[in-house]
Amino acid sequence: MTEHIGFIGLGLLGLPMATNLADAGYALTVYNRTASKAEVLVARGATLAEHALDAAQPIVVTSLWDGPVVELLITPAFLDRMKGGLHISTTTMSPKLSTQLAALHAKHDVAFVEAPIFGRPEAAVAKQLAVPYAGLAEAKQRAKPILTAMGASSLFDLGEQFGTALATKLAGNFMIFSAVRSFTEALEMAKHAGADPKLVVEMLTSTLFSAPVYQSYGQRLAAGEPGLVSKIPAKDLGLYVEAAGQLHTPIANLFRTMV
Amino acid sequence: MTEHIGFIGLGLLGLPMATNLADAGYALTVYNRTASKAEVLVARGATLAEHALDAAQPIVVTSLWDGPVVELLITPAFLDRMKGGLHISTTTMSPKLSTQLAALHAKHDVAFVEAPIFGRPEAAVAKQLAVPYAGLAEAKQRAKPILTAMGASSLFDLGEQFGTALATKLAGNFMIFSAVRSFTEALEMAKHAGADPKLVVEMLTSTLFSAPVYQSYGQRLAAGEPGLVSKIPAKDLGLYVEAAGQLHTPIANLFRTMV
Repeated sequence: MTEHIGFIGLGLLGLPMATNLADAGYALTVYNRTASKAEVLVARGATLAEHALDAAQPIVVTSLWDGPVVELLITPAFLDRMKGGLHISTTTMSPKLSTQLAALHAKHDVAFVEAPIFGRPEAAVAKQLAVPYAGLAEAKQRAKPILTAMGASSLFDLGEQFGTALATKLAGNFMIFSAVRSFTEALEMAKHAGADPKLVVEMLTSTLFSAPVYQSYGQRLAAGEPGLVSKIPAKDLGLYVEAAGQLHTPIANLFRTMV
Repeated sequence: MTEHIGFIGLGLLGLPMATNLADAGYALTVYNRTASKAEVLVARGATLAEHALDAAQPIVVTSLWDGPVVELLITPAFLDRMKGGLHISTTTMSPKLSTQLAALHAKHDVAFVEAPIFGRPEAAVAKQLAVPYAGLAEAKQRAKPILTAMGASSLFDLGEQFGTALATKLAGNFMIFSAVRSFTEALEMAKHAGADPKLVVEMLTSTLFSAPVYQSYGQRLAAGEPGLVSKIPAKDLGLYVEAAGQLHTPIANLFRTMV
């Protein structure tokens, strides 16, 4: 494949996803605030962009910290360079901002697909990412093989309305937080009552809670390791509550006091 | 099999579990506050006890609303009649009360096994119950085939310390409550953001949350049906907080305001 992709953001997820694209034969121009992160990709033949604008290829993938950073980099000048192209936005941001960005892209004749990523860096390396995505049918069709090459093992089409894939991502992140914090609290209680946490984890994660999120965190909790350590939940809980508007979110409100 | 079992409590779980025992060939003497519930078992050859004391067979299974009801029925006079026997207690109660009951049984030379049940009535009928159990090794050995015949597809040995199987059950019930209420809250947010709840449920329950608890409740929530309807969570959340003693239980405390 010789399709040219501009890849912006080589963080914990961005780097392995870009590496997967390079390995799949895509020609990459990469940009990252800290340029040294790109070394492994340059060694694989990628071009290092000095400025973000130089990464404005016909197809662009962004993997950034939050929505405002995407806004900062994907400027009108950037979009003019991409005319007729496609931007696959994997950053977790508010559904509202994603919808606004999609409209801005449309004005510049650039297709926009929101495709936030479920999965830890190891899952990106192993190409086991779960990815909900939303956008116009034609754009999604174009994005699909790229997302698969990036490491998506499960792609879920949420439809054409922007914001829906992001809402799914925010729902899932909140549920991960809820599952891990509830498991943590419950295991403390069980230990207090004299139970061996390893046995409790084994019982629960092999029956009612036989899902990856409980199994992976359960092992860590049973071993006395901390559950959630990432800074991401605090950010995403804020986006969740914002996305809920006037709805009551008592559980998320409590969790925001716990991060 | 001609082993004689006294079965006390023919509620939503008790009735199908007793029916499974009758079908497996055990001779049953059953007792229930509302005697009419026993009809289907009497039709299968079970004896209906007029008083609870008449159900004091060498092996007794109790399936009652809460610990105080067990205390009310399993009196010293009852235990004297069971001398040398075994009581399999499936009622969800506090780990502390179960430990006290075990000591009382020991005084009367009756073995005690705590075996609280995970599973809805349909799961009892389908013999798909998950059962953590605790007690002395010999008593558990005796209880095992009976629990299996009652409908346990997964039996988890928590050890010899009483209270540990109950702590596991309280942990699991709290986690079910947490999972369902968090899922409910998250789906409302996603709907508000324009997402189709059916697609969100499909995505999340086929990836990170591919566990029975999310799959069964997710279908109901996506169809607009209420999540948890049982009265049991309120009772069990109280037992959970009690079992946690002086530990902080912010999540359970919030949930107690939500039932």
